Amino acid sequence: MGQKLRLGMIGGGKGAFIGAIHRIAAQIDGEYELVCGAFSSNPDVSIQSGKDLGLDISRCYASFSELFEKEKQLPKNERMQVVSIVTPNHLHFEPAKLAMQNGFHVVLDKPMTFSLAEAKMLKQIAEETGQLLCLTHTYTGYPMVKEAKQQIAEGKLGEVRKVYVEYPQGWLSKREENGDNKQAAWRTDPSKSGIGGAIGDIGTHAFNLVEYVTGLKVTQINADINTVVEGRKLDDDVNVLLKFNNNASGVLFATQVAAGEENNIKIRVYGEKGGLEWQQNDANSLLMKSADQPFQILRTGSSYLRSFAKHNTRTPAGHPEGYLEAFANLYRNFALTIKAKLNQETPTPEMLDYTGIEDGVRGMAFIEQVIVSGQSDQKWTAFIV
Amino acid sequence: MGQKLRLGMIGGGKGAFIGAIHRIAAQIDGEYELVCGAFSSNPDVSIQSGKDLGLDISRCYASFSELFEKEKQLPKNERMQVVSIVTPNHLHFEPAKLAMQNGFHVVLDKPMTFSLAEAKMLKQIAEETGQLLCLTHTYTGYPMVKEAKQQIAEGKLGEVRKVYVEYPQGWLSKREENGDNKQAAWRTDPSKSGIGGAIGDIGTHAFNLVEYVTGLKVTQINADINTVVEGRKLDDDVNVLLKFNNNASGVLFATQVAAGEENNIKIRVYGEKGGLEWQQNDANSLLMKSADQPFQILRTGSSYLRSFAKHNTRTPAGHPEGYLEAFANLYRNFALTIKAKLNQETPTPEMLDYTGIEDGVRGMAFIEQVIVSGQSDQKWTAFIV
Amino acid sequence: MGQKLRLGMIGGGKGAFIGAIHRIAAQIDGEYELVCGAFSSNPDVSIQSGKDLGLDISRCYASFSELFEKEKQLPKNERMQVVSIVTPNHLHFEPAKLAMQNGFHVVLDKPMTFSLAEAKMLKQIAEETGQLLCLTHTYTGYPMVKEAKQQIAEGKLGEVRKVYVEYPQGWLSKREENGDNKQAAWRTDPSKSGIGGAIGDIGTHAFNLVEYVTGLKVTQINADINTVVEGRKLDDDVNVLLKFNNNASGVLFATQVAAGEENNIKIRVYGEKGGLEWQQNDANSLLMKSADQPFQILRTGSSYLRSFAKHNTRTPAGHPEGYLEAFANLYRNFALTIKAKLNQETPTPEMLDYTGIEDGVRGMAFIEQVIVSGQSDQKWTAFIV
Amino acid sequence: MGQKLRLGMIGGGKGAFIGAIHRIAAQIDGEYELVCGAFSSNPDVSIQSGKDLGLDISRCYASFSELFEKEKQLPKNERMQVVSIVTPNHLHFEPAKLAMQNGFHVVLDKPMTFSLAEAKMLKQIAEETGQLLCLTHTYTGYPMVKEAKQQIAEGKLGEVRKVYVEYPQGWLSKREENGDNKQAAWRTDPSKSGIGGAIGDIGTHAFNLVEYVTGLKVTQINADINTVVEGRKLDDDVNVLLKFNNNASGVLFATQVAAGEENNIKIRVYGEKGGLEWQQNDANSLLMKSADQPFQILRTGSSYLRSFAKHNTRTPAGHPEGYLEAFANLYRNFALTIKAKLNQETPTPEMLDYTGIEDGVRGMAFIEQVIVSGQSDQKWTAFIV
Repeated sequence: MGQKLRLGMIGGGKGAFIGAIHRIAAQIDGEYELVCGAFSSNPDVSIQSGKDLGLDISRCYASFSELFEKEKQLPKNERMQVVSIVTPNHLHFEPAKLAMQNGFHVVLDKPMTFSLAEAKMLKQIAEETGQLLCLTHTYTGYPMVKEAKQQIAEGKLGEVRKVYVEYPQGWLSKREENGDNKQAAWRTDPSKSGIGGAIGDIGTHAFNLVEYVTGLKVTQINADINTVVEGRKLDDDVNVLLKFNNNASGVLFATQVAAGEENNIKIRVYGEKGGLEWQQNDANSLLMKSADQPFQILRTGSSYLRSFAKHNTRTPAGHPEGYLEAFANLYRNFALTIKAKLNQETPTPEMLDYTGIEDGVRGMAFIEQVIVSGQSDQKWTAFIV
Repeated sequence: MGQKLRLGMIGGGKGAFIGAIHRIAAQIDGEYELVCGAFSSNPDVSIQSGKDLGLDISRCYASFSELFEKEKQLPKNERMQVVSIVTPNHLHFEPAKLAMQNGFHVVLDKPMTFSLAEAKMLKQIAEETGQLLCLTHTYTGYPMVKEAKQQIAEGKLGEVRKVYVEYPQGWLSKREENGDNKQAAWRTDPSKSGIGGAIGDIGTHAFNLVEYVTGLKVTQINADINTVVEGRKLDDDVNVLLKFNNNASGVLFATQVAAGEENNIKIRVYGEKGGLEWQQNDANSLLMKSADQPFQILRTGSSYLRSFAKHNTRTPAGHPEGYLEAFANLYRNFALTIKAKLNQETPTPEMLDYTGIEDGVRGMAFIEQVIVSGQSDQKWTAFIV
Repeated sequence: MGQKLRLGMIGGGKGAFIGAIHRIAAQIDGEYELVCGAFSSNPDVSIQSGKDLGLDISRCYASFSELFEKEKQLPKNERMQVVSIVTPNHLHFEPAKLAMQNGFHVVLDKPMTFSLAEAKMLKQIAEETGQLLCLTHTYTGYPMVKEAKQQIAEGKLGEVRKVYVEYPQGWLSKREENGDNKQAAWRTDPSKSGIGGAIGDIGTHAFNLVEYVTGLKVTQINADINTVVEGRKLDDDVNVLLKFNNNASGVLFATQVAAGEENNIKIRVYGEKGGLEWQQNDANSLLMKSADQPFQILRTGSSYLRSFAKHNTRTPAGHPEGYLEAFANLYRNFALTIKAKLNQETPTPEMLDYTGIEDGVRGMAFIEQVIVSGQSDQKWTAFIV
Repeated sequence: MGQKLRLGMIGGGKGAFIGAIHRIAAQIDGEYELVCGAFSSNPDVSIQSGKDLGLDISRCYASFSELFEKEKQLPKNERMQVVSIVTPNHLHFEPAKLAMQNGFHVVLDKPMTFSLAEAKMLKQIAEETGQLLCLTHTYTGYPMVKEAKQQIAEGKLGEVRKVYVEYPQGWLSKREENGDNKQAAWRTDPSKSGIGGAIGDIGTHAFNLVEYVTGLKVTQINADINTVVEGRKLDDDVNVLLKFNNNASGVLFATQVAAGEENNIKIRVYGEKGGLEWQQNDANSLLMKSADQPFQILRTGSSYLRSFAKHNTRTPAGHPEGYLEAFANLYRNFALTIKAKLNQETPTPEMLDYTGIEDGVRGMAFIEQVIVSGQSDQKWTAFIV
């Protein structure tokens, strides 16, 4: 730990779910200190939220433009170093752009932007400014997901042949957006979410998880997109067949109308020699199967795990770590990378293991091309970024 | 029980897996007595197999044509009443046809025939002769699958919106057909299996399970068919997107190259109000989920279950019944239906609850049209029987 | 299979739970043919039950004494060879004695007798007559229980240090014996059950399972015995601390008042190097744990299992076998042993792997001494048979 | 949140497991700011540890006596308000006493003290000084444990009849204390741990969990205490039969020699109407069973839960919270209680829901009396505090 990074936040004011999660994730490992924020587009709410969080009133800002302007004027050893942007999708690009152009690193909630075009621009800005960006694809933060990635990279399954990834939720089974559920309201509103509903909100998590764990790239998609709840303006259910760059095939589904389901993202990968399975509902176990061998259950915190899993765990085996710790792993690795950079050291592969801007661009491309494929009568659509 | 039905068998000689299963399934509930058979296309093996099974030597036949000929000549109260045909697919139609034309009821292993054309002919023969046919789609024999069907029929989930069905196996991950694995040899040989590999062997089970449980009919398919193991002559992996006659959508996958997997068929169905989940690996539990309610686990043998589940269970809750009992349920219900007919009684819905010839025709149509869809560039193919 | 053994039955008439189970268990593998019986102490019920089972009316007897008398007079190649006694405990000794004295082998439901004294006499009769006896401790019939036994015998866990065995049921949470539940009535009636309630009905299963799996012998007991439901005449709940002949210690509990529980017997054994765990609720899995290794799940039907598990399984991995198959394994091994004896062959260890009279005597001693310990203020009571 | 409480720490320097856990637990919810500490009995290590944690060098103390002395001299709005004591057991009493006598609230790792005598003295000091003490019995911090407590208090199970609690670990299966495992060294050393080994380290957790969840009090114990690993100076395995103040009976076992086990504390409670089951390995589920009803699984984060569970959860259902969050719940409730007191408000029952000094005294009594019972030939020992 040592010196904490000074963190600002855009969005995440009173009542916002994901803002509170980001703050916990940032503070679990003591790598960040929240020093300022523009927590709401409503200036009063923004300032009151900052006060409630115990911030110095002078650093509770009325807007994100004010935040950048004022922070930039502070002495270098006082000013914010990293900003977390936890607003709806249509408010990702502008603050992220300003942040990088003003010399701040960025933590950004997924999906990266409102559109693929914005994503590509943001990538260009990052390259020009040299600022770093971490995209919070939480599920890649789990130790056993990381173990799966390393096992596959080492060839434990042999060449990958099949991938199944699924993300069933039930919370949009009814027309929640008509009530006072703010989450539901913006996520089903194309002016705020972009062209993707379920595909943008959770389909991108599944897509990112697949590419992260397998190390493969999707090359073709065949999508069935549905709006199940009548009157909804965006998709709430997607089924996508996949082809990968090594000719493996896959199935991805993501739905928000599986009534009764919580949030159980799950991945299964099979290669020539065996398979593995991970699901958030039993997040500290990685099930591995090989022909003619007993199944194996690898467990978070065990001595036999590989470097990424170990680096991302705080407690010994048998002390379950969960969603917040997975989220915290992204924040922590991002902090370690930034600190290494500040110290002019080379970050280790373990430090660099957070979702970055390239993954963000691919995620936005996935949203757009799944929508295209869903509208097409042609079976397969090439996936090109 | 009372008087046992006299059962003959075609196929299922020494070393055949499924023949032994059929015999156990037939005898668990004491509804059948095996009295004769033509157990192999090799006359010596056939006769020796019968002797090993303790049959009267005079009723161990050298061929199925001899079986029908000779049995027909026996007095009515001695001769075989039902014949189980447990041969590879290319040897289903001919003996089934002869059986019905000679006045015998038929138990037939799935898929029903070698081709859809044969299936339609068989259906016609059944209609003409009035003989009954039971197709052994084992998984519909499980009590909790039946409970799922009744819960959905009663509207417990509301209108069905989503169906996921999967059937992962790993036993054909290598080119087993080149060794001495007879099962692998004929199931990957188009001259014996027909045009479907995995889609015929296990895809039809998944398809049948979906239509059985939901009561819906598939209307469109979008298939990705793969032959993963090099040199194999038939598909060993299929992914199919589905549309149903109520506009629900679904995903079906069946694979025989998921290295390390056993045989874990699983179905999930979601409606407006909730969902349910069943898998063979935990066959005596039915998981039900509703928005804003605790999950429920319904258990085989419990007092609160519906009539079909109760009718198909032998032991109280907590005494696990498995694959053989599920298989036996098909045999038992078929026997009860035949006996009711013999007694000129009307079979109850519980007795009639076995897979019949109509399902068999749909299954063959599914195989053929998934193959057609898999070869097409067009996304959706109408499913027409 | 080949020639079937001719089986008679005492008890198990209309409406009796365990009689039907015994019949299924006997016929699953085709090793027995039911030829006669005295199914009830009520002659009319006995004879009608036999008729309903499709028996020849001449071999439906009014009483078990008639059964032995008449069967003995039949030609040797027609008469019953084995008799299953499935009556309440107070009616075990007399028919078992007569059976052996008249030259019949015996399958007997557990616990073996009404009292330890009877058990010892029965043992003596068996030794004198040379007849064989199989006691149906069903849970030792499960393939993965047998795998556990062989793994421990091979030293896979190192020296055993700890054993936990439990058998929670809930079906006697209320005073069922006051209603029309016949099972509840006799099992809570000391004139029929003997001095043990839960300890006799299910505690003996747990005790037998422990000694079977570990190969150890209990040497000391420290028992807490409870009658939880007011007015009940026998114990319905027991907690017993154990010491074994290698100084390992253990905990055994058995209860019939764990409201809501089904029938989930479970055993855990730990040695110097690792542990294992099996429970009926997931009967086809054996969980093995070693320090600093992934957990392993061994599965029924897998190629890597030992000889006992393989010998006692009918289907490949992934086709769940359950309670009836476990029960059938006892019957089948007993049949194979009898047939070997008839053929003057030496039975293999796999054939001899059924619960016998010695285990039955130990079980009765356990009941009596747990009751003694439960009534004592002294902590430990030596367990002596 | 708002203003953070100023936290100091005693113990928990470099390499200490539990110190890091306490710091994470304290900072997850932003209720505390670590401001000072005496992290080691080695002054250099203490000071360096503080520096590494980013503390002001002036508040990194060489000893806990210096800590109290110096902090007391700081202005009231700067000085430490709460101190966490995370040293081995023999170093609990003295700093806790000093803390309270100097006006600081105390968070103390369990078991509370080295001996029951110390515990009683500490209780007296707390009463005299009015300072608050929170004992970190982590497992009572889990939301679903709290739900279980409230369900039972509401009478959902009816009168409680049976309790089973178990805590199997495997980490002391070998003589780890001879190597460089510091944890193992002090926990097996009677001069540091006190008279209890496993009973003190984990048996007290199990005891506390039972009394917390059921609301009952243990009244009699019957203990079997073992030192399994040769040469070890304290017990590493205990089995205890329990009686409660409502005549319910129970079984508690705790072992550190269950080779291969992690840390899976589990509790089951059965009443007249049903039972419930919770285990840390599936911490976000509470299994409830009732006679003649489907099992229910209640899940953390669900809308139908009671007030305690809701108050102690940060994320919606389907986002697993784990050990660190459970630990944090203790810290957070303690902070909320302290703040209420500072604000002269009455803490809510939800705030007061942390383990306190009375539980700590009972825990110490449990250790001592289990040891007494274990050494006695008498079956039952009255449990008196």
